Amino acid sequence: MLTLRTLTAEQQAEIDALRDATTTTSRLTVPALEDVMYRPFAALDHGFIRVVDYAGGDASVVQAARVSYGKGTKATSDDRGLIRYLMSHWHSTPFEMPSITFHVKLPIFVARQWIRTRTASTNEYSGRYSILDREFYLPAPEHLAQQSTINNQGRGETLTPEQAKQVLLLLSLGAEQAYNDYEEMIDPQGINLARELARMNLPVNFYTQWYWKIDAHNLMNFLRLRNDSHAQYEIRVYAEIIQALLERWMPLTAEAFRDYRQDSYNLSAPALDVVRKKLAGETIDQADSGLSRREWRELMKQLHIPDS
Amino acid sequence: MLTLRTLTAEQQAEIDALRDATTTTSRLTVPALEDVMYRPFAALDHGFIRVVDYAGGDASVVQAARVSYGKGTKATSDDRGLIRYLMSHWHSTPFEMPSITFHVKLPIFVARQWIRTRTASTNEYSGRYSILDREFYLPAPEHLAQQSTINNQGRGETLTPEQAKQVLLLLSLGAEQAYNDYEEMIDPQGINLARELARMNLPVNFYTQWYWKIDAHNLMNFLRLRNDSHAQYEIRVYAEIIQALLERWMPLTAEAFRDYRQDSYNLSAPALDVVRKKLAGETIDQADSGLSRREWRELMKQLHIPDS
Amino acid sequence: MLTLRTLTAEQQAEIDALRDATTTTSRLTVPALEDVMYRPFAALDHGFIRVVDYAGGDASVVQAARVSYGKGTKATSDDRGLIRYLMSHWHSTPFEMPSITFHVKLPIFVARQWIRTRTASTNEYSGRYSILDREFYLPAPEHLAQQSTINNQGRGETLTPEQAKQVLLLLSLGAEQAYNDYEEMIDPQGINLARELARMNLPVNFYTQWYWKIDAHNLMNFLRLRNDSHAQYEIRVYAEIIQALLERWMPLTAEAFRDYRQDSYNLSAPALDVVRKKLAGETIDQADSGLSRREWRELMKQLHIPDS
Amino acid sequence: MLTLRTLTAEQQAEIDALRDATTTTSRLTVPALEDVMYRPFAALDHGFIRVVDYAGGDASVVQAARVSYGKGTKATSDDRGLIRYLMSHWHSTPFEMPSITFHVKLPIFVARQWIRTRTASTNEYSGRYSILDREFYLPAPEHLAQQSTINNQGRGETLTPEQAKQVLLLLSLGAEQAYNDYEEMIDPQGINLARELARMNLPVNFYTQWYWKIDAHNLMNFLRLRNDSHAQYEIRVYAEIIQALLERWMPLTAEAFRDYRQDSYNLSAPALDVVRKKLAGETIDQADSGLSRREWRELMKQLHIPDS
Repeated sequence: MLTLRTLTAEQQAEIDALRDATTTTSRLTVPALEDVMYRPFAALDHGFIRVVDYAGGDASVVQAARVSYGKGTKATSDDRGLIRYLMSHWHSTPFEMPSITFHVKLPIFVARQWIRTRTASTNEYSGRYSILDREFYLPAPEHLAQQSTINNQGRGETLTPEQAKQVLLLLSLGAEQAYNDYEEMIDPQGINLARELARMNLPVNFYTQWYWKIDAHNLMNFLRLRNDSHAQYEIRVYAEIIQALLERWMPLTAEAFRDYRQDSYNLSAPALDVVRKKLAGETIDQADSGLSRREWRELMKQLHIPDS
Repeated sequence: MLTLRTLTAEQQAEIDALRDATTTTSRLTVPALEDVMYRPFAALDHGFIRVVDYAGGDASVVQAARVSYGKGTKATSDDRGLIRYLMSHWHSTPFEMPSITFHVKLPIFVARQWIRTRTASTNEYSGRYSILDREFYLPAPEHLAQQSTINNQGRGETLTPEQAKQVLLLLSLGAEQAYNDYEEMIDPQGINLARELARMNLPVNFYTQWYWKIDAHNLMNFLRLRNDSHAQYEIRVYAEIIQALLERWMPLTAEAFRDYRQDSYNLSAPALDVVRKKLAGETIDQADSGLSRREWRELMKQLHIPDS
Repeated sequence: MLTLRTLTAEQQAEIDALRDATTTTSRLTVPALEDVMYRPFAALDHGFIRVVDYAGGDASVVQAARVSYGKGTKATSDDRGLIRYLMSHWHSTPFEMPSITFHVKLPIFVARQWIRTRTASTNEYSGRYSILDREFYLPAPEHLAQQSTINNQGRGETLTPEQAKQVLLLLSLGAEQAYNDYEEMIDPQGINLARELARMNLPVNFYTQWYWKIDAHNLMNFLRLRNDSHAQYEIRVYAEIIQALLERWMPLTAEAFRDYRQDSYNLSAPALDVVRKKLAGETIDQADSGLSRREWRELMKQLHIPDS
Repeated sequence: MLTLRTLTAEQQAEIDALRDATTTTSRLTVPALEDVMYRPFAALDHGFIRVVDYAGGDASVVQAARVSYGKGTKATSDDRGLIRYLMSHWHSTPFEMPSITFHVKLPIFVARQWIRTRTASTNEYSGRYSILDREFYLPAPEHLAQQSTINNQGRGETLTPEQAKQVLLLLSLGAEQAYNDYEEMIDPQGINLARELARMNLPVNFYTQWYWKIDAHNLMNFLRLRNDSHAQYEIRVYAEIIQALLERWMPLTAEAFRDYRQDSYNLSAPALDVVRKKLAGETIDQADSGLSRREWRELMKQLHIPDS
């Protein structure tokens, strides 16, 4: 899942310099995360995610929960048990102790979804100060799909090769033309239009960049929302990389997060009643369940009961 | 400053219905704000701001600061004094009590700056569910300016009429073409591309809409940043309307905000020293002041001392 | 559940004045909540909760989710369906639109738990400025219980009448003595000790007061945590009153909150697997389930399966 | 200012073990802060502050502001200039990148003020689970002062030795008695009252402990409020230690913070007008200034102009 993105030689040299400049610390260090520090992992056609800093790890969760003077517990198995207990009982503040900073390159429309997570700190590259690059996102043909007929906000059937070709032509021509116009407008020898104005004709598939810092608790909230089948594919690609990095950084927390959040299923009060009745051998159907048809269908699917 | 935006007849009827449906309440009511409730005030060429709800006012600040059982004070003059004291001493929690909800229509690039205020609640119109309108922002010619030569992020000289014409041509052709392509891609009889994908070629000067709710304290932080000469003109237009609405809603707070925040001047430690020396009749110049050249220039300007 | 607390005649007069001073508004008004505005509902032996302001209601959630120009929907049944959909799919921002302000009188140790909800605005009565009242919490004998033997943070068996008597004697003597000392230390004719110092000997069962404002989404998070069997009894008393007020204010939201949060049950990934197997008629026991003994017991209890 | 607190041998051994367990990292490391990691610095009579983790430093602010691939700048002087620019122009997000975690032992009444900073993460030692220690704060006699006659929330004249002795007697007798009662109530061989109930008679000068994590921006907001002459002495003691640690951790940021926040002076709009007039040689007195008497006095004091 983690593939390196090739950068310019100058950028790569800057990254290598930071990777090579190791120092000693008495802070908690996570070797599996150190191994990938600063490296740009590829997302979509031009984007990436890099870890540029972090503090803490699984052990910090335990120490904070215990308000301890040293290590919180003796054995890793104790850490695991406590972390699972905290996760399952929604004790969130210990998970706020570790934090991580990413450098992310991403299309503007992805950035617009991403920024809705307010409990994070963001420093974005400024199109008022700086000139944006000629870099925009074009989906791979297999990710071009029709509007879903079931789900108002999702994707349905994949386009035919001809349709995909046509869409990519429209997208690339539009983006190239927009960037040509942008360059013409900001040309210092020509119109020299203010950058903050010239950028307004660039489409939302152009790439931007930011530094993004978040604690582990809020990162998991982000993942729960974005590494999910309801999220748009393009942000999910980033969320999957982040989840892989979380597994390296805080393996016990990541495991508990999967078991108690991502792969768990919340039974509503009427759904819980249905399950109880079925387990007791009673017959119950949708009409009597208090569940809507959509909810009933989803429940049967989750319970692996064939929908008759 | 507050000019009404014309909407469709249907939208106007919905607004009128809400305006007409008055009820009685024992909550604090602010007649000057009630007068403009729900009305769309024009911002830029297609945007607007409407107040759709509010709670509290100047009196709520006083009641909260006093933790009172009834009205906090007897006389309006007492309220004014307390509000000014709270503002000047950075006691911010009483100003968090009143809150207000706006419905805003704004270009995407303005929305991207706006959303950086995290201490607010936002519900945005979704381009995943819904089809966006053919509405994009084109600056008035007098707002088209060159990149500033002094300030890396600002605007300098206004464009010549010929240049302005050329820019507006590029912007409008680009936006129209983008929307034509968008329509072609989402055509249910044609490619029927998923909306969440098709929108990616639309430029950031297209309009979006949201409901935005914020408390008075954080609203003033927003205004301090956005109703400011350093802010981009396009967001300032919205901030000016909001400030006018704040003056209607909480006149005492708005006055204190101007006196102690917007029209105040923060003397840094070395600048304070310069002022003290000048008042004591001592001579001091930039080289000895501990201020950078830029800071010295700005200080002299603020003090109305001609820069020699 | 909602019982009025008797206040001083002066306080009652202030409250009556606000209740009588009705005005007209074109804002959304909720008659069932207006009926109880400003009234102090009794909590514990001296505490209370009063609603002092609010904005919005169920309809605001719908309007924000739809980013609508008028009312969001035609029929209440549509509102209900949308609210249930938003709740079950964790779409939280529409529920951030309505907000409510309470005046609360509560023991300091309850206040210390309460304030851990950070997404709210609080203005507390200041023991630096003002003299605190001789009012402290004494539990009713039936709420005095032993340390739980199962749960490290809970209560077990109720004390015997003799033990309860002894505890109440110790608590009341201690509190009375502390207040006597406090009065002696702050006596302006005597030591006249600064209030901010003198208060330091008062126990945490003394009452404080604050204004507390929160939006509906974060209020439900508070209720989920505090109107719960794991919460300490004393804060639960307040949470129950708040829940009753939420039912008046936003009945559709309150119902969805119960069904999808409070009375729902989150099946962890291994628990979901157990349920699937049981429904498919397979045999599975705790040892093979991936659940700890504690988790298994809790699951069987939730599923109404007798623990063999 | 930084004095070590003596802990138990066991606690000290745990701390030493963490200090000795150094590893290598490619993260930014701040040697001056590493030197004091984990060490408990004494605050008041039994309290302390220890740094238990951190991420970032001055260089992180620069890197985030530049959204850079490597180090943000070549020279430390460039870092200093940029940090001062960001501070003076209220660009706060780059300062949100570094964060720090403290372990703090503090009296409950200090904790109650401290927790009002909501933009931090706190894990407190639980009096529901655990038994509290017999440790309470007694002020040094020189910090016992009368209620201020000028300032409603401050301290005035120091008490006479006899008065101080009397106050300390009342405080210590009260606290000792309370703890004796607490012990009696929780005695497992006796009443065995639930801990969550027994603690309610403990005064607010008893010590509690917590882990507290905050980013540098919000830490400075905390310091601005708490390392200030208006703050109660007891919390200021902690804030001074934190400021000393900030100077070690982020010296350039700490310097800019002093110059542009702590030692700066905010001239309100009318005050700015007074300064301009005085510098222009005009005569202006309080009555014509738009300033209240209190404001005029404070302004003259700040400007070093003898109040006539």
